[in-house]
Order: sequence, then C-alpha cells, then structure tokens
Amino acid sequence: MKKDNERGKSDINSNIQRRIASFYSVDKPGVEFDDKLLRKISTPSDLKKLNLTELNELAAELRGAIIKNVSKTGGHLASNLGVVELTIALHYCFDSPRDSIVWDVGHQCYSHKMLTGRYREFSTLRQPGGISGFTNPNESIHDVFFSGHASTSISSAFGIAMANKIKGRDNYAVAVIGDGAFTGGMAYEALNNAGKERSNLIVILNDNEMSISENVGSFAQHLAVIKARPEYLQFKAGTERILKKIPYVGDDLANDIFKLKTTIKKAVYRESTMFEDLGFRYMGPLDGHNISVLIDAIEAAKTTHFPILIHICTKKGKGYDYAELDPSCFHGISKFDINTGEFHVSDTSFSSEFGSYLLNIAKTDNSICAITAAMSLGTGLEPFKLEFPDRFFDVGIAEEHAVTFASGLAKGGMKPVFAVYSAFLQRAYDQLVHDAAIQRLNITVVIDRAGFVSGDGVTHQGILDVPFINSIPDTTVWSPATYEEMRRDLKKSIYETEGLSFVRMYKGSELPLEKEGACLSYSDFDVFGKDDSKIVIVSYGRLSYYAYKALKFLNENGYKVKFIKLNKIKPLNIKAVEEAENSDKIFFFEECEKSGGVGEIFNEALTENHYKGEFILRAIDNEFVEHSTVELMLKKFGLDSDSMIKLIIYNLGING
Amino acid sequence: MKKDNERGKSDINSNIQRRIASFYSVDKPGVEFDDKLLRKISTPSDLKKLNLTELNELAAELRGAIIKNVSKTGGHLASNLGVVELTIALHYCFDSPRDSIVWDVGHQCYSHKMLTGRYREFSTLRQPGGISGFTNPNESIHDVFFSGHASTSISSAFGIAMANKIKGRDNYAVAVIGDGAFTGGMAYEALNNAGKERSNLIVILNDNEMSISENVGSFAQHLAVIKARPEYLQFKAGTERILKKIPYVGDDLANDIFKLKTTIKKAVYRESTMFEDLGFRYMGPLDGHNISVLIDAIEAAKTTHFPILIHICTKKGKGYDYAELDPSCFHGISKFDINTGEFHVSDTSFSSEFGSYLLNIAKTDNSICAITAAMSLGTGLEPFKLEFPDRFFDVGIAEEHAVTFASGLAKGGMKPVFAVYSAFLQRAYDQLVHDAAIQRLNITVVIDRAGFVSGDGVTHQGILDVPFINSIPDTTVWSPATYEEMRRDLKKSIYETEGLSFVRMYKGSELPLEKEGACLSYSDFDVFGKDDSKIVIVSYGRLSYYAYKALKFLNENGYKVKFIKLNKIKPLNIKAVEEAENSDKIFFFEECEKSGGVGEIFNEALTENHYKGEFILRAIDNEFVEHSTVELMLKKFGLDSDSMIKLIIYNLGING
Repeated sequence: MKKDNERGKSDINSNIQRRIASFYSVDKPGVEFDDKLLRKISTPSDLKKLNLTELNELAAELRGAIIKNVSKTGGHLASNLGVVELTIALHYCFDSPRDSIVWDVGHQCYSHKMLTGRYREFSTLRQPGGISGFTNPNESIHDVFFSGHASTSISSAFGIAMANKIKGRDNYAVAVIGDGAFTGGMAYEALNNAGKERSNLIVILNDNEMSISENVGSFAQHLAVIKARPEYLQFKAGTERILKKIPYVGDDLANDIFKLKTTIKKAVYRESTMFEDLGFRYMGPLDGHNISVLIDAIEAAKTTHFPILIHICTKKGKGYDYAELDPSCFHGISKFDINTGEFHVSDTSFSSEFGSYLLNIAKTDNSICAITAAMSLGTGLEPFKLEFPDRFFDVGIAEEHAVTFASGLAKGGMKPVFAVYSAFLQRAYDQLVHDAAIQRLNITVVIDRAGFVSGDGVTHQGILDVPFINSIPDTTVWSPATYEEMRRDLKKSIYETEGLSFVRMYKGSELPLEKEGACLSYSDFDVFGKDDSKIVIVSYGRLSYYAYKALKFLNENGYKVKFIKLNKIKPLNIKAVEEAENSDKIFFFEECEKSGGVGEIFNEALTENHYKGEFILRAIDNEFVEHSTVELMLKKFGLDSDSMIKLIIYNLGING
Repeated sequence: MKKDNERGKSDINSNIQRRIASFYSVDKPGVEFDDKLLRKISTPSDLKKLNLTELNELAAELRGAIIKNVSKTGGHLASNLGVVELTIALHYCFDSPRDSIVWDVGHQCYSHKMLTGRYREFSTLRQPGGISGFTNPNESIHDVFFSGHASTSISSAFGIAMANKIKGRDNYAVAVIGDGAFTGGMAYEALNNAGKERSNLIVILNDNEMSISENVGSFAQHLAVIKARPEYLQFKAGTERILKKIPYVGDDLANDIFKLKTTIKKAVYRESTMFEDLGFRYMGPLDGHNISVLIDAIEAAKTTHFPILIHICTKKGKGYDYAELDPSCFHGISKFDINTGEFHVSDTSFSSEFGSYLLNIAKTDNSICAITAAMSLGTGLEPFKLEFPDRFFDVGIAEEHAVTFASGLAKGGMKPVFAVYSAFLQRAYDQLVHDAAIQRLNITVVIDRAGFVSGDGVTHQGILDVPFINSIPDTTVWSPATYEEMRRDLKKSIYETEGLSFVRMYKGSELPLEKEGACLSYSDFDVFGKDDSKIVIVSYGRLSYYAYKALKFLNENGYKVKFIKLNKIKPLNIKAVEEAENSDKIFFFEECEKSGGVGEIFNEALTENHYKGEFILRAIDNEFVEHSTVELMLKKFGLDSDSMIKLIIYNLGING
C-alpha cells in the first residue's frame, strides 16, 4: 500500500502515472549517484572550502542522494530537489549553528541534514529509530526546531533575531519559507511584527508556485506580478555581472546592488511589493538554482542589518524529470522505481472513499461544498474539485480561515464539509469554538489522519483531536472503523446532526473488521460477545479491529468477554455506558492523549452511575510520539491485539 | 471595584485621570441626549426615510445614547463613538438582513443594535438577561454571528458572499473590520482567498490607528503611508463634489469615481496598496465621520460586484472629549461620570499585581521578556513596557505569532512571559503544541481572565483553557488563588520549571481567602480541615475561596469535612489524590468545561488507585455560557459556597 506523507497526495490516478512514464527519458536523467564530495562533508565548514565548480558538483551529488534514498525510504521528494542549491548557499554563507537557519515545515531539510553530518545515517530516513523526515533538535545542533506545520518559521526566526539583538550578538536568524506556507496568516503576523524592528533577520521566500498542489490565492498572483516586471531580468543580469567576483564580502557591493535595484525600480516601475509595504527590504526575484547568484544575494543581505526578504524562484522536483513534470505526485511519496518513476498506489483509502462518496452526495445536493487547506490530493477531494469547481474551495494553508469561511457558507445556506488532517486542525481550535460551535451552524469537519501516522513524526500524529474537540460544547464526533461506517456517519453528520460535527478517519485503508466476522449496525455503538460477560473491552475507530481480534482470541480461549465498539464518541450514548456497567472489569483502549479523551469521560459517566468494578484505561499518557510505524506505535502504547490480550489475561490472573 | 472588559484596560493611573478631568470643558460637550429621531426607528427601513440633515441629527442622538448608557452600564465606549456615521451609512445603503453586515469583534455594534429595533432594551446592555455587548443572533436577525474574537469577519462575510453567489442571490456581504483586527493573520488569509473570486463582498477597513492601545506593526505604517499620499485629499474633494447628488444609484457615477481615482493615481503616484496587491479593489481613504461621503462610497462599491475594500478613517471616542483624548482608557470601561469622565479604579487586580511583580523580576534579570497581543493595559504590562521597551513586545492581535515568537526568544536564551486572556489563548492551541511544548522550551504563559468573565458574554468566558492545555503533553499549570500564590507560581514557572508552563489568574482582585483564615503553604496543594475527615472537597483557583468558606460553615455545623486546595493542577501531584482517597465522598468543583478538566483526571487517578467511595464532580457540562455576573454564573453552575454546602448536605442526607 502506498503511504503518503504530510500534506501529501493520496492517490495518483493511472492516467497521470502513464503520462509520467511516457515522459521519462533515459537520455536525460539529470541524476548523479556519485558522492565523492558529499562523503567528505561532515560539518558545514567543510562545504566552505569548495569552489563554485565543486559546489555545483555537490548539488548534483545531493540531488542523486535524495532521489536514490527517497526511492527506497519514501519521503518528500519534489520539495527537497527544489532547494538543493539554496541549502548549499545557506551553509556556505552562514555559520550554523551560530547563525540559526529555520526551515518552515521542515519537509525540505534533506540536503541540510546531509550537509550537517547526517549523510551516513540518511538511509535510515523516516525509519523507526532512524533520522526524522523533518528537522529535529534531538538529532543535531543544526536543527533549530522540531517542525512539521507551516507558516511558523518567520515568527521563530524573528524571536531568535530579537534575542540576539537584546544579548548584543551579531548572529543571523534565517527563515526559509515557501510561497505555499505564505498563505498561512501567521507568516503575515510575523512580517507585520518583524518589519518594524531593525534586526539580523533574513527571510528566504522559496517561490515554486506550489503549495502541494498549485498554490492558490491572490498572494500567488502578486508574486506572479512581481516576476512579470521588467526589472526582473535586468536585475538578474546585473547581479550575475557583479557576482563573477565570488566570494566577496563588504558593504560596498551590497549597496551597489541596492542602488542598482532602486534605480531600475524608479526608472522602470514604481510599484512596491507587499513585503516592502510591510517594512521589509526586498531582493529578487532570483534564480534559486544558481548557486553564485544565491551566495551573492545572501552576502549582500547580510550587510544590511535590516529585516530583508530574498525572493528566489525554484522548480519543485528539479533534476528528476518525473518529479518536475508532476511535483504534486512527488511531494510526499512512498518507495518508487527511479527509472520508471512508478510507485505503488493503494486501491482504496479512507481519503479516497470519502472523496468519492462526498462527490456522489454532491451530485444530488447542490448545497454541498467541499473545503480543503491545500490538501485536495491528500484528503481525496481532487475528483470533487474537477467535477464541481464552483463548490470546491482550496483556501491555501489556512485552517483558521477554512473553518470561519465554512461558517459563512453555512450561514448562507450551504452544507460545507471541511476535510483536514488531524494534526493541522489543531490550528483552528479557536475558530471551531468561536465561529462554528457557538454559532450552532451545520458544518461537517472530516478529520483525516486521525490517530498515529507512520513516518512523519512527532508534529504529525493525530492524537490530540479527540481531547481538544471533547472540550468544545455542542459538538458531535463519529469515529468510524470501516468505509461503510464512515459513509453512514458522514451522511448523518451532514443531514441529521445540528451544529458542528466531526467524522474522524485513520490513515490508509480500512482494516478488515467485517472480514473478521464483526457485523456492524451503524448506530452509536455495537456490542460483540455474550451479553452477560463480566469482562468488557471498550474502544473505537481503528482500534476496533484490534479489539475485535482480541475479543475473538479471548472468547476462543475460554474467557467470557464482550466488546463495546463505539461509533459516536461525542456525546457518549449513555446506553453504551450502561451496557458496560454490569461487569467486574472494563478495559478501555484509545489511540489519543489520555487527558480529555473518551476514556476519562467514560469513566466519569461510570462514576456518576456508581459503577464499582475496575476500569483500566490504556491511551497515550502525557507524551509526544516520534516517528515510527503504526504497528510499532500501537505496540508501544499497548493498543494492538496482542497487548490487549496480554493486559486482560495478566489482570485476570492477578485479580481473579 | 472597576471591571474592565474585552481587550480593555485594567487600571488607569491617577495622573491620566487628572489629565482627562482638566481637559474636559462643559462648553463643548459634543453630546446630545435628545432621541426624537432615534425613538422612531424600529427597523433599518425607518432610517432610509431620513434626509442627510436628519441622518446627521441621528448620529448625534446615537452618540448621546451611547455615552449616556455606557456611563451607567459600562461597556465599550470609544470604539462605538467612532463608528456612528459608518453604522448609519451601512444601514442606509444596505438592506439588512437580506444583506449581511458582519462586525469584526462586535464590540462596536451599539449603534447597529439601536438602529435594528433594540433602542428600548439598550439600557439592559451587558446586564444579566439583558442584551449582549456583542452581536448575538439570538437577539436579532440583524446580528449575523456571535462575536468577540478579532480578525474573523472577512472570512465569515466571504463565506456568505460565496453562498450568495452559488445560490444566485445578489445580496451583499459586508465585513466591518478595524485596523487593529488587521494585525491578525486570519484577516490576511481571508483577503488572500477573497481577492481572487468575483463576489459581492465589501470590506470596510475602519482605520482609527488604534487596536486598544495604539496600533502596532508595519501594517499600521503602510496605512499611514497610504494616507500621506497626495491623491488622498484630491480624492476626497472629488468625492464630495459628486456626492452632492445624494441619493444616487447606478454604475455611471461609480465608474466615474473609479476613473477619477485611477487617473489621479496614474498621474500623481504609481504605488498600489497591499489590498490591491491581494486582488481587492481599493477605495479610500475616506472621512469616516462624513455620512454623505460614506453613503456615496458604499453605493459606488455596490455597483462593482468585485471584492472591494473601503478604507475609512475615524476617530475613536469621537464626540466625547475625554474619550477622544484617551481612547485606550475609554475602550472597555466601567460606569463613569459623564461630566467629569471619571470612573472607579480598583486598587489592585491580578493583572496589575502580575505586571508589577514581573517588572521587579525583570530589573534583576535582563533575560526576562514580556509579550502581549495588543493587551498591554489589560494584562498589566504597561509599566513593563515603559521601563523596558527593548524587552517588551506588543505583537498586535496575533496570539499565534506571539507563542511562536516566544519560542524563538526562548531558543535565543531569553525568558519570555506571554500574558494573554484565556479566551484569546484558544487561538494559539497549535502553536502551544507545535512551537512551544514539543520544543521543550522554557516559556511562561500567564493566562488572564481564566474562568467566568462578567459582562462580555459567551465568546469571552475563560472556561476552556484548563481542558485544552490538559491535552498538551509536557506542560505545567498553576492556578493560584491569591496574589502571593500567583507571585510564587510565576517565579516557579520562570525559574524552576522545564518546558512550557502556565499561571492562570481570574479577573479582578484576589478574594480574601487568607482573611477567612486559610494559611497557604505555596506548594502544589494545601489541605484544610481534619485529616481523617471522610468527606473531602477538592477545588482550585478562584473557587478556593468559596470552597474554604463552605468548609468553614460545614465544620462549624458539625460536618467533618476537609478541603484539598490544588495550586499546581497539571501534572497532578499524586499525593493530593492520595490525600483524598481515604474518604467516603469526594466533591470536586471547577470553573471550566468538565470534559478534559482536572476533575476527570482526578477521578481517573482515583480509579487507578482503586478508590471505591463516591466522586461527585461539578463543572460546566458541555455548555456555552452567556453574559452575566460572575456571582450569578457561579450560582447557576453550583460553584458558590451556598451551592457547595447545599450539595454536600443534601448528598449526606440521602446517602448517609
């Protein structure tokens, strides 16, 4: 099964895949697998000894290492291929970790990792116990922050820049942020703040005209307008002329560049960029694949000691034809064949099944609207987008706006469905409260990637949505275990539920609960096993499969156990609690943080009903969870069938 | 005691007050208390019958009604005085509720309320059972949304505009948003989305150069630049010439205005505004106190059928000298004397005590930084701002950026303290997780207005912070009951706690817990009453006072009860749980949503320890809480001393 990653795509249709395959040409692979320079680099200082020719060779080696490795481990391909030259230029010009380089989202950090002493471990990328696919300060002093969510880098880097200023240090703080991440409001909040303070803050805007899919919104148009200006080419020419003197340092040349820019600007065109409106100096647009241009621009920027934005243009997937042609498909990707660009595509997933079903509903109900925050591929909404573009809204990486916009649509009589990854919905907590729940508007939020997510790591686990939504009054939450349950829950959410409701789905394909023999009623909960059992398992969502298997094993081995499978987890149907009460022991399993989860609420309901038996809760207890496989994570937290069986048998052994 | 309101100020120092009093002149009060026009208006259609002279008289009457009423009820004064003419023009030009007028934050909606049939109820403003100080759809079909948090209106209005477009309706959707709210990233996310879609969306930017205090950031500077352009005055003159023909409708004049604007622009100045960069048409800046200018501009905007931003300039506090002179003080205000502008100032509050104490620490520790999101007055940080401007950061209404910026400061070796209202911290949930907690950086968040907040209503209650923070791993939370406890907790948070920690304070002055006889140890918890009591009360924060009083009453009346007062509420000190275990009944009281609160965690810990007694939890159960007094809200949810006593005695009566 194909696993796709952070803000990644879910399913590539076979047409696209054929198109890729036919484009590929072995004559121009653009890929070098040599590593004679790369293997000698163990710190950024080694890089600084290379000349421009060698730096360009290094770029080819890095590109080869990325393609070769990601073809085996899966990971983020296109974005990493786009920033190879930039990464080299950054480590050439700055002195990490003395200077702080903050990577927005962090999915584009592979070259950075290899250049900062992790080339040898690079083959363990995203593997359990291996190096993370995002920056991780536990791995290296060169990784400034854990990362994974978008639009935060300018805020972080500005914080570091102000700390440096207060402490009297002349270090630089650099934020590298894509045009996609610039659709998130935090980036603007940070510009608005940083633009007025003199500091050594340098923002690199990596403009590849993509979020994961094509970038959206009027900011993207603004960038296009900037790039269409006549001074663009002239500035490029001027820069390149100057940059023949590499390496150089000093204020004079930098000021020359600014003067040149200002002169051209005044002569040819008087418009300012949005960045200049917000107090930043602006330099660009520059060719982001020309190392000498980049080095020169960065050195010039370093001499200003003012907040400055360097706008560079790059190509996602650069150097690997398949990825250049279809960077969305090669954003977050599973293992693939280097020579054919082919990768395994799963037949089905919750995302794609949801997308198809919503599309079907929308065909007969023209009030249905679909909303995504730059995730039309990942959330299965691509077919909806193609068929009903007028009722499809990709708002960019702007989960906050997405929820409030959905409230407006609902107020106007539409039935909005916002599909979003669990980890990213965190960003809209206040909007869920303030603009959706309090308003009692009928909005459906489909939570994708709920629960553990393999590979991506600590910032991508969907283990907080249950607690933070439980805290919001007047909301309804379903946690289906199978596709059919998801479809029925979705329909109930859209048509039979007042107010804000959620349908949460785990990543990937459904687990074969029904093949194991479970017959679902599609109501609030199901009970499996003998009614008078004194041992009760309670669980929901993905864990239903594991709990059902545990139930079968225990029943087959003479333990009288029943399993209450919740489907609606908020508000709890009190009959599900009553169903559990007439027992000696209740074992509750859930794949989320314990605090605020369903287990605690279930226990509180039992307490209110004066239940006197044992209640044993297994969940994630006040802990962040780093990347691994789902199977290993379930095992670690005692949530797979084996662990459930062992816990129950052990407990019965010692307590009767 | 003075109570201040939403994004309001806490304490006015006596110097400022004296300055105001000396400025006041009875010769130019600018206040009319007549209501001969106002009392005849029961719907916006009545307004449309008035001529321009009458509309101006109506403005004076509204202004008088606002001043007179707020002087008695308290509320938002300066912002409401600033938008009187705008509100008249909006209801003159639009057809509410067919057209939707969305007020950002909603604190400036008083004229709107009076013009939409609520003049007679206006004296009940913010009183229990009376009309809300913000928009509230339960009150009127003219109130589109509940409101209270900033920067959401463009998203909401754009949603309505798109619903109208999809449904083929020609209605307008209007967002009225201040320049302060424009410092929040959501506003930018919404512009970025709305700018590319043709729709009947009209954004009114109400530029008064203020958030609550003076507006901050480079966006404010951008507005200043726009206003300094030469075409500003010319456009004004041109507009006024045209507008002598009021009322008019039709495309011709509107296009004339645009042509005029474009011509001037091209001739005099070629710069575009940030709004035009983001795809909006731009009209302005206009005199926001000239009704005829406003009507004409709005009518012109209506004919474009493109997203358009009308930039108007207003004066906060307009027409009331005291408020014009010091709009921050008259933002959210308690009752005041109309003739002297004087209002009651409390001697102390948690906010001011926190501010003073942090200032003291900062004198000897130059790593301390203070951060506020446009709330330097409300959170008591004004003295810090004056004394250490280099270490004080007002980031604007940008809680998300505030937390991530704090992470950057912490990474750079500073000790950041972010002071924020509970209800507004909701907006930074993801940043608390992703940029603060996961990074294990030492950051202190001081949560002001935790628990019930009187007057402001459903969007301002601080009843979610406990649950949503409980869900975040590796965090520490203190909930002090007194100033001294707050000071000690703050010091522990800054100096003795690893990672992200919180000190939550209730609004206003400390309750006299120690005067009642309680002697605090300033450790994780205290126990009052006989150790072997079989009846146990557990509570924390503000409720400690009420619980202690209940304890005293019960003990004096022969009930053997003890009270466990928690100070550190996360992670729970297991000894506090063990202290409660040897009992028959535990009564737990907390002033937050039950789901995810401390009570459920306490119960879960009891369950793990095989506690077999009763556990009775009183909290807010899956409910939003509308505006009232704190006393009435506590009573409603059974959280005052009387309710505690009654619950306990009743329970003992029926159960032994």
